[in-house]
Formats: sequence, C-alpha cells, structure tokens
Amino acid sequence: MSAVAALRLHPHDDVAVAVVALAPGAALPGGGHAAEAIPAGHKVALHPLAAGSVVRKYGQAIGATTQAVAAGAWVHVHNLGLGDAAPRLPGGGTATAPVPVTPRTFEGYLRADGRGATRNYLAVVTSVNCSAHVARAVARRAEDRLHEFPGIDGVVPITHASGCALDGRGAAIDVLRRTLAGYARHANFAGVLMLGLGCETNQLPDLLAAEGLRESDTLGATTIQGEGGTAATIAAGLERILAMAAAATGVKRVPMPLSHLTLGLQCGGSDGYSGITANPALGAAVDRLVAHGGAAILSETPEIYGAEHLLTCRATPVVADALMARIAWWEAHVAATGGSMDNNPSAGNKAGGLTTILEKSLGAVAKAGSTPLNAVYGYAEPVTARGLSFMDTPGYDPVAATGQVAGGANLIAFTTGRGSVFGCRPAPSLKLATNSDLFRRMAGDMDIDCGRILGGMSIDAMGEEIFEALVATASGRLTKSEELGIGDDEIQPWRLGATM
Amino acid sequence: MSAVAALRLHPHDDVAVAVVALAPGAALPGGGHAAEAIPAGHKVALHPLAAGSVVRKYGQAIGATTQAVAAGAWVHVHNLGLGDAAPRLPGGGTATAPVPVTPRTFEGYLRADGRGATRNYLAVVTSVNCSAHVARAVARRAEDRLHEFPGIDGVVPITHASGCALDGRGAAIDVLRRTLAGYARHANFAGVLMLGLGCETNQLPDLLAAEGLRESDTLGATTIQGEGGTAATIAAGLERILAMAAAATGVKRVPMPLSHLTLGLQCGGSDGYSGITANPALGAAVDRLVAHGGAAILSETPEIYGAEHLLTCRATPVVADALMARIAWWEAHVAATGGSMDNNPSAGNKAGGLTTILEKSLGAVAKAGSTPLNAVYGYAEPVTARGLSFMDTPGYDPVAATGQVAGGANLIAFTTGRGSVFGCRPAPSLKLATNSDLFRRMAGDMDIDCGRILGGMSIDAMGEEIFEALVATASGRLTKSEELGIGDDEIQPWRLGATM
Ligand SMILES: [Ca+2]
Ligand SMILES: [Ca+2]
Ligand SMILES: [Ca+2]
Ligand SMILES: [Ca+2]
Ligand SMILES: [Ca+2]
Repeated sequence: MSAVAALRLHPHDDVAVAVVALAPGAALPGGGHAAEAIPAGHKVALHPLAAGSVVRKYGQAIGATTQAVAAGAWVHVHNLGLGDAAPRLPGGGTATAPVPVTPRTFEGYLRADGRGATRNYLAVVTSVNCSAHVARAVARRAEDRLHEFPGIDGVVPITHASGCALDGRGAAIDVLRRTLAGYARHANFAGVLMLGLGCETNQLPDLLAAEGLRESDTLGATTIQGEGGTAATIAAGLERILAMAAAATGVKRVPMPLSHLTLGLQCGGSDGYSGITANPALGAAVDRLVAHGGAAILSETPEIYGAEHLLTCRATPVVADALMARIAWWEAHVAATGGSMDNNPSAGNKAGGLTTILEKSLGAVAKAGSTPLNAVYGYAEPVTARGLSFMDTPGYDPVAATGQVAGGANLIAFTTGRGSVFGCRPAPSLKLATNSDLFRRMAGDMDIDCGRILGGMSIDAMGEEIFEALVATASGRLTKSEELGIGDDEIQPWRLGATM
Repeated sequence: MSAVAALRLHPHDDVAVAVVALAPGAALPGGGHAAEAIPAGHKVALHPLAAGSVVRKYGQAIGATTQAVAAGAWVHVHNLGLGDAAPRLPGGGTATAPVPVTPRTFEGYLRADGRGATRNYLAVVTSVNCSAHVARAVARRAEDRLHEFPGIDGVVPITHASGCALDGRGAAIDVLRRTLAGYARHANFAGVLMLGLGCETNQLPDLLAAEGLRESDTLGATTIQGEGGTAATIAAGLERILAMAAAATGVKRVPMPLSHLTLGLQCGGSDGYSGITANPALGAAVDRLVAHGGAAILSETPEIYGAEHLLTCRATPVVADALMARIAWWEAHVAATGGSMDNNPSAGNKAGGLTTILEKSLGAVAKAGSTPLNAVYGYAEPVTARGLSFMDTPGYDPVAATGQVAGGANLIAFTTGRGSVFGCRPAPSLKLATNSDLFRRMAGDMDIDCGRILGGMSIDAMGEEIFEALVATASGRLTKSEELGIGDDEIQPWRLGATM
C-alpha cells in the first residue's frame, strides 16, 4: 500500500480529489497527469470535459462545467457550476440495487417476540428530569451487583432535561414520548423500569397508553411520590431491576440473519477527509449490509438541506414526497426560532475544495451507500423497513443517534475527523477515523482507521473491513466506547417547543 | 397549636381561606362566623363588602366585588371579578420597606475577591454534551479521593445537552455561555476546570473571552481532542482537579453578614396548600433576609404572566419597564414555537377556590414577601442587587434554579406540595413541604413542614423558622437533598433556538 496523491472515489467519476497539493505533472488515477497545480482537497479533471458537461464525483452529478475543461485541469468555481445537471426527479435513479450475496449470520440474542438484539442490557427510563437522580442511583447500584447476573451488559439510565413545563399536547410531548417508548421497547433491553416523579406533565400512564406499552414482568412503572421519596424509590427500583436481571441472566447468543441488524449512520466532527475516506467506505459497508437484508438509517436532515434530490432521485414518489415534507417542516421550524437553514458551501468549504452544495452534501450522504431509499421516518419512529431509510433528525450527534436508537438501531457507525468520543448505550457505536493521525492520537477511542485509504487501500476493501467489524460488534465484540463505559450522557431526546 | 378551619393570610385581608369545608356557623378568624357552606380552599368574607369594593388576600388586591357581599359569605366567581382594582401603576405601592434589625451573621467561606460562599465545592464545567461523560468521570474519581482533602464538599460535573449544532451567534449561545460562566465564577466553587471536546460550536476560548474569564490556578480549560482522547483527558482532568483540591482544603468558615446570601426562590409540584402555607411563610422569611441586607430572587415568569402588576406596583418605573420587556419577549417566544401564554385560573383552579389571575399569581408571588422589587435580570445574569429582584426564567424547576445559581444564588428555598426531590449543587436547596402529610410521606426529602400552619402555627412564626433554617444551612448544615447526594442531574441550562 503506497500513499496516493489523488483519489477517484467511484469508477464513473470525472474528477479525482487531490489528497495533497499536486504539482503540474503529478500522476493521477487512471494514468493521466495534473496539467496545473491542484490544491489539497480540490478536484482535478480525469479526462477532457466539454462545456456544459455533467461532472460526477461519488458516481453522482455534482454540477456541470461552465466552460471546456482539459484533462488534468483544476475543477472548481471558475469552471464548475450547479447547472441543471442534478437529477431532480424521483426515481431518476443513481441507486444501485443490492447485489445477491451468500447468506451471513451474526451471533445475537433472540427475544421472545422474534426480534434480534446485539446487547443484553436493562434500563431505567425517566419520564421527567425530576427522576433523573434516582434513575442514575438505581442503575449504578444495580450495575455494582451485575457480577451476580452473568450475561447482562449493564443497566442504562435514560435521563433527559424535559418532561414537565411543556405543552401536554402537541409535537413536543409526542416526540418525547415516542423517544422514551422507543428505548422502553428496544430489543437490546431485556427489562425496563419506567420511573417518574408523580406530578409531571409527562405522566407515565399517558405515555404507556399513547405508545401502546403495557406493564409486565419486563416493563415496570413507578413514581417517586408513589413510593414515598428518594430512598424508598431507589430501594424499590433496585429490587425491581435485580428481579429483571435474574430473569435475563444466562441468555445465550445464537446465530441469526443480518436482517436483524439496524445500523444508524452518524458523522460528527467532520474534516476534509470525511467525504473521501470514512464516509464512502462506510457507504460500501452499508451496501453490503443491505445486500444481506439488513437495514441502515441515514439522518441529519440539516446536512442534506438544499440537496434533497440526492435522496429523492433514489426513492419512489411517495417516499420522495415524505422527505420533502420533512424539509418543509424544517424551513418553518428554523424560521420560527429566528434562524435560517443554509447548507451552502461556506468560504472555508470552498477554500477546502468543495464547489457546490451537491458536492458538499454528497460527502455526508456517501456514508449511506448506493442502494434505493426505501422509507422516510419521523424522529424516533420505529424503523421497520429493511434496506436504506432516512430518519429526520437534527445533525447534532447525541440528538440524532438518540432518535435512531429509539427507532430500533442496534448498531451505530460514526465517522469522525476531528475526534468524537461518542457512545450510545444500549447500541454499540463503532468510531471510524477519517485520517490516520486522528486514529493514532485518540487510539483509545477510535475503532477503525479509514485514513489507510490515503495510503492506497481501496474504498471497497475498507468497506469490507467495516462490514466485518459491524458483524463482529453485533456478535458481542466490544467497541472502544463500550470499553470506556461511554454512552449514558449522550442519550438526548430532541426537544421541541418552548420550556415554560 | 390547634387545627384551624380558616386562615387569614395577612392582617389586612378582607377574606379568609377555608382550610376544610366549612358548615354554616363555623368560626372564622377575627370572631365572625360562616353564613353559608364554604368549600375547602375557597374564600369567605370576614366583614361586609359593598358592591365594587376592592378585595384583599395576601394583603393585596385580588379583584373587586361585583355585588354587595355579607360578612361570612362565600366569595367566588359569582360575586368577585377582576374589576380595575389591581394597582397597575409602577410605584403604586403595596411594598413594605424592610424593617431595621439587629445585625446577624452566618458562618461562610470568604473568597479572595471578598465574596462569601455557603459551600466549598470544585467543578468540571462542560462546553458541550460531547464532554459530559469525561466530566462525570473526572468528578467521580476526584470525589473518591476527597477524603485526602478535608473541607471540600464535592466535585460537581456541570453537564448539559447543548453546545454544538446551534447558531454560533445570538441568544441561544449567549444564554448558554452566560449560564456556564455563571457556574464557573460561582463563589461556592473553589476551583473549576472547563472541559470541551475541541471541535464544538461553543469554543472554550470564545466562551472565556465573551464572559471576561481568564485561566488561572483556580480556572483551568482543556479539551478532549487536545489531550488525546477520553482516557488521557480523564487522567489530566483528575490531576488538575486534585491540585485545586489541595489548594482549597482546610479553608475555614468565618462569621460574615447575611448580605453575602443570595436566595433563589422556587416552587414545584404545587398543590392547594402552596399559596396558603409554604409560599407566604417563605415570603415572611424573605422579608427577614432582606431586612438583614440579603438578596432574594423571584423567577418563573410564566407563573406571573397576566399579573405582572403584582410586581411592577412594587418597583420603580425603570425596573417595571424591564419586567414588561421580558413579558413581551415571552409572548413572542411562545407564539413563535406554536404555543400560547395562559396563566388564567383553569376550571380546576376555580373548583379549588381560585377566582382571579391575580389571586392565582399571588399564590406564587407570596414566596417573595413584601419588600420592593429592586432589579430585573435576564436568565443567568449576575445578581448584584441586594433585596428582592426578579430573574426571568421558565417555571420548570431545574431550568429556573440553574439560572438562579448561575446568577450567584448560594441558597435555594423550594416549596412543594406534591413532593419534589430537587437539588442543585453547589447551592444547598431547602425543601419546604406545604402540608404535613407530604412531610411525613417523604420525610427523607423534606426539610421543613409548613403544614403546621394548618395546625395553628402563624405564618410569621413559620417564616422565622424558615429564616433560621436558611442561616443554619448557609453555615453548613446539610439539607436533605445534600444528604441524598442530589443535585448534578438537575443542572439544566435554558435552551433557546433550534437544535440543528
Ligand atoms: Ca441523559
Ligand atoms: Ca452529526
Ligand atoms: Ca446536567
Ligand atoms: Ca410552579
Ligand atoms: Ca417551578
């Protein structure tokens, strides 16, 4: 593996990306040479392009030339525009159907209702901030006794800032209830205790009724006021969780098809390498997972804003309309709070080599691979579709991943260039470094070094390695964030509406 | 002390409140008798009232009679309206000047800059959710070693949900920075480590510059990316905090005037007794604190909405205008997020005996006592005025108290009828039960039983007891929530703007 100076991200691409600053005459992928100096991170033409030609990167149109471009020439704002090159119609189709593959299995937990799980946790889910301390105390004391109950990975306190002083009807409480219910029914939890204060707006009986949940041996519900205060509730909660631990101990992993895997896709702390190493490599892994019948969830709506057709062109009209409805919601939401949506390349983006909004968004969308978009979900809605789907979430890592996990994600793959230390119990989170320097500097936090692509490893081979790591992780291999015990503080339900 | 059937809340009142359902002929305060049946919680006239008379409760106008009312008659919606009885003009004046008193001291910590403190904590303050796990880990490991450093009360992790994916300019980040800076400079912290991830919107250098904070021996700042990951940052953070512990150990309490006390007023989980026991008794304690030169902060703007003149009539025109500007902000803020402000008595309020919005809001405002309103502060702004001031906050307990503590509150008094288990390190929080049943049921969480007012104890005597408890707490006596270790999860900065 020798260091590469320029990367072609997809076999159909018209441009390569300079990994380092290229001098005139530098060798390009496919045998050509740079005709002029190309700054690092910028694009260089791999063959002559007539004026008005569609230009492809990631195998997708990022714009059209505004003049003729010679082979080896620098491609940027002086000769590339948005044009009308982008496929804007649903089904216009750059999606590739998943290829048939030899069936694979992972070692998972088979739940009584037929669902597969990648971990075997218990949870204390709070209705309101007022029960957060007690929930943490129950979880901590229960974890201190887990040595008595082999095979249980931990007890997760699901705490948050909201649950009272919000409108008792409407989007804010609906989203909160859906998120908490999503955790309560997550397959990675063998048992859940719902814990309230007692007088909060987000009443537990209402939450359970609204979400179709019923109390059972594996789903308890109680309040601090009902139990008679902090100490009594900690004691009662601990007893209840330990009873669930006794029932859930000794459960064994069994082989099950990869269709039980639901992978949440995340990126945070992106850098100039995200779009050329970790993101496309994760996309290659997603294509493999989808081919095996698994599911992947792309999210972070603000990061595709203005380039929605990157996704609608891979979707049926019904799915495309659902996505456009979410985009319209965001425009109204952000305007109401006095902000504005803007995902256009900034001056800094352009200096770094990103020319159009399509190209910028493709860097984020690349982690979703190339298969059709099958469904669009609201935040924290249960993800039942297999293949690729989209869940509407903010771009903020903890809020976005919380929606995915609440929707059933039992694996997270997280690309990072600056160095995130994210975790999201009960789902393991694999951290994919976009560059080898980061991988070395934060070796205790990073799982996979995608910077090796800059050393000559192909995106496809990197995708294969990520795919195998996902299967191994689903089967029980600990991620770095799990080794470090990270993943409680990052559970952050999306908060809408005013705090009163 | 014998049980009372009806309470006159202030010597000037025209009505008493029935503590239990009164039969015709039941004795009333002052020697009269009920002329008809009076439901529990409802008002009864203490003397004849001509049509159009101002009616006073809490010593304040709550409305005017719409017809003549006989002594002993039930006073409610059938004979009491809002009228124009309320003093709507600034300086219109129901405030009573603080009475001179014999100087008192408490035993506090005197900081190098001359400020007084009620506790001696250290803190790890996070810029962003991404550093929450590391901050908690540092705090927990440091607390495990505090036995080596006598006189330090604990290490508080100041974590939150925000700090990235928000607008880098504007109210949302300004309020967040102000809140975090308020904790960083809180007198109850002998040392603070500011901890970021490294790539977040809320950059530590910008926060420090915007808030005029400078790194020093007692104010450190570092990032996880800068330190090289989770494990390295925990080790470095622990070393830094332990160095601060070594410098802060052995500090002794000394007598200092009560002007060093800043008391945050809170209520949460109110019930029908809040307005007649704990809140007016706390008000009597606040009048004493103010007379001694101390400061008290009333907050929870949505709970006075529609009855602002309860406060503006106690303020100069400048202070009154500042309050009205905050009210106008709330109207716009809540409308923008699709909600509406409404603090009018609900059907349930009316069934419980509350007739007008003035009366309802007075139940909350009663905890601020009767002295002039000297200042109005934005959320988390440093409270420098002595006497009574108002800080604009939501009503939601954790968010409201976080603003007060960030503003410098070093004591919290929290009235509760349903049973809150609130705590807010580094400030001790005294829990005042509105009824004795709650005090017994949640004995481990409640500090003071204000239900004794229903057994015949005067509001003034209860106020005296609360005042003495505040002084003792300020001097180091632990509150129930401190004994239970509560107060980290409840730190919740007010979040404005959209999460992107
Ligand atoms: Ca949480
Ligand atoms: Ca993100
Ligand atoms: Ca917190
Ligand atoms: Ca309240
Ligand atoms: Ca409150």
